[in-house]
Amino acid sequence: MNDITFAVLGTGGIGRRTLEVSQHTDELTPVAACDRHGAAVDFDGLDVEELLAATEGNIDSGPGDGDVATDGGAVADAPSGVKQHGESVGVVASEQATPSDDPIQAIIDRGDRIDAVLLALPNYEHDFIPRVADRFLEGGYSGVLIDVLKRSRVIEMLDERGEAFDDAGITFVCGAGATPGLLTGAATLAAQSFVEVTDVDIWWGVGLKSGYEDNRGTVREDIAHLPEYDIETARDLSESELEAVIDDHDGVIEFEDMEHADDVLLERAGVCDAEDVSVGGILDVRRDEKPTTTTVSVTGRTFDGETATNTFELGDATSMEANVNGPALGYLKTGVRRNRADEYGVFGPAELMPRF
Amino acid sequence: MNDITFAVLGTGGIGRRTLEVSQHTDELTPVAACDRHGAAVDFDGLDVEELLAATEGNIDSGPGDGDVATDGGAVADAPSGVKQHGESVGVVASEQATPSDDPIQAIIDRGDRIDAVLLALPNYEHDFIPRVADRFLEGGYSGVLIDVLKRSRVIEMLDERGEAFDDAGITFVCGAGATPGLLTGAATLAAQSFVEVTDVDIWWGVGLKSGYEDNRGTVREDIAHLPEYDIETARDLSESELEAVIDDHDGVIEFEDMEHADDVLLERAGVCDAEDVSVGGILDVRRDEKPTTTTVSVTGRTFDGETATNTFELGDATSMEANVNGPALGYLKTGVRRNRADEYGVFGPAELMPRF
Repeated sequence: MNDITFAVLGTGGIGRRTLEVSQHTDELTPVAACDRHGAAVDFDGLDVEELLAATEGNIDSGPGDGDVATDGGAVADAPSGVKQHGESVGVVASEQATPSDDPIQAIIDRGDRIDAVLLALPNYEHDFIPRVADRFLEGGYSGVLIDVLKRSRVIEMLDERGEAFDDAGITFVCGAGATPGLLTGAATLAAQSFVEVTDVDIWWGVGLKSGYEDNRGTVREDIAHLPEYDIETARDLSESELEAVIDDHDGVIEFEDMEHADDVLLERAGVCDAEDVSVGGILDVRRDEKPTTTTVSVTGRTFDGETATNTFELGDATSMEANVNGPALGYLKTGVRRNRADEYGVFGPAELMPRF
Repeated sequence: MNDITFAVLGTGGIGRRTLEVSQHTDELTPVAACDRHGAAVDFDGLDVEELLAATEGNIDSGPGDGDVATDGGAVADAPSGVKQHGESVGVVASEQATPSDDPIQAIIDRGDRIDAVLLALPNYEHDFIPRVADRFLEGGYSGVLIDVLKRSRVIEMLDERGEAFDDAGITFVCGAGATPGLLTGAATLAAQSFVEVTDVDIWWGVGLKSGYEDNRGTVREDIAHLPEYDIETARDLSESELEAVIDDHDGVIEFEDMEHADDVLLERAGVCDAEDVSVGGILDVRRDEKPTTTTVSVTGRTFDGETATNTFELGDATSMEANVNGPALGYLKTGVRRNRADEYGVFGPAELMPRF
């Protein structure tokens, strides 16, 4: 496949690390990065080292950039702005960037030379990513858009735009981080032994001591999955209320039967029914060691009538971040292939896997 | 994606089971099947049930059809002809088939309506599959050819035809069964956490008591991997010499550092260097229980400097057969996508996985 050019919207944790990881392959050329203050664009390829060095500790984490919160998956910078400093805020601290009143438009305007756009934006409101997609639709973009979200509700909103994506020639890949991305991909692979999948059990462990300050957004999203909260009530918690919830759990919060997009994504890929998928995990904000091993178990019936369980386990030393960025770029490349083969619309990671 | 039509060359174990498993998805329509006696072709879709029932116990396992031997992976019918009976031998026992002096040509002649051809043929000679590919090249076929072999030497031969495949518009997918197919796919997925993979360890277990008679070809191929044998000397063993080798090992043969195509396929996909891949396993021909759990371990370095091992395990109750047919059809579909996107040449399963 030819070289792939891509842009990153949002230069928080995911955006930055994706740029960094992309340096490990020759097939991906980062050509644009933006936050709400400006955009860096270079079709010969961004100088990622300069960009990261110049903006290190200079991320504006206010609403409008920063990062995407996905429990057990991607990492969110808290909207605290603590890292913001210096004269030039955010990406414009890089000599490659220029300030802009509408940096997303600056990317859209150059969209004909950008194969894929990673939306590493925060999603404090459900419809934020869908609204960004609308802008790309309005701007006549035809290429790949990819997010690392995990909310079923966002996928529904994107699906409502399926026909518009089709008409525009946009391939939207959703949920392409660690979970649902990597883990539903693993479930899909594991399902290949079976003619019928009866259970998919996704169980994650995250240790988040040293990364805690940078990832409060994630913790908040996770708390929304506790039985006594939902996304709205968790968002409305003050910082001290949030701390109180954590203290109540002694820093270790266990989640069962989470409402995660994994179920929806596996069903739309035809792997199994959504109701046969269960997602849970343990978050420990007081230790960096994972409190439990992230495991995907797929149980099914083989063509010759046997019942068995295939399993995929992530090594405990792989961080959330490591499990987001590689998969996101892998699905980005696969999305570009689909796009070049004129396959448009909304795709989950499981749909991008080889599967009979 | 549109409906995919496919043909199966060879109606031994793999051919038959692939036809059977394809009934579990709507996206695949089997339109042709042949052995050396004849061919069944129906572009409305073969009646798989009739074909399998009519040929049950009536497989001609002589040289020229039967099945492909792949240790720890696909299953080979022994060339004993024991299953052959009745007036019509092999596929022509089905009312859908007609006898032919050159059944492969009968398929090639209808190639413009066949998206993919599974070569479920024996490979007692190294160049058998490559020579079949030559016939499709000469016949002007442009579509997907797919095999479930595991020999590095065959892949080299196919690679020599890479330019010819390119010119013809053929996408050749090689090694798409359990191993290297499913297991290198799992290794590729597991590698997504890492920016550098340092070790891939593939370890398989096969219990082959009840399937032993049908799978002597596989056992023979496995023996070729023992230090004191090679493919030629193993092929030249008489049946009683073969039994003597098995007796010497009390029916349980352990293999280390096998020359398997997994290493070549992972290297060409860019996952790691071939020398960092090790393949071994245990074959027990006196029990059906697997003597060890088939496990893929991938060790690497994450972008943030950690070293970890991700693992994929197949449930012990999944048979070799179950792990060949699903993956083969999954890679077949992915191959058709690539073909439709004008990607031609030789591809291993690892190259068909999402990967950054």
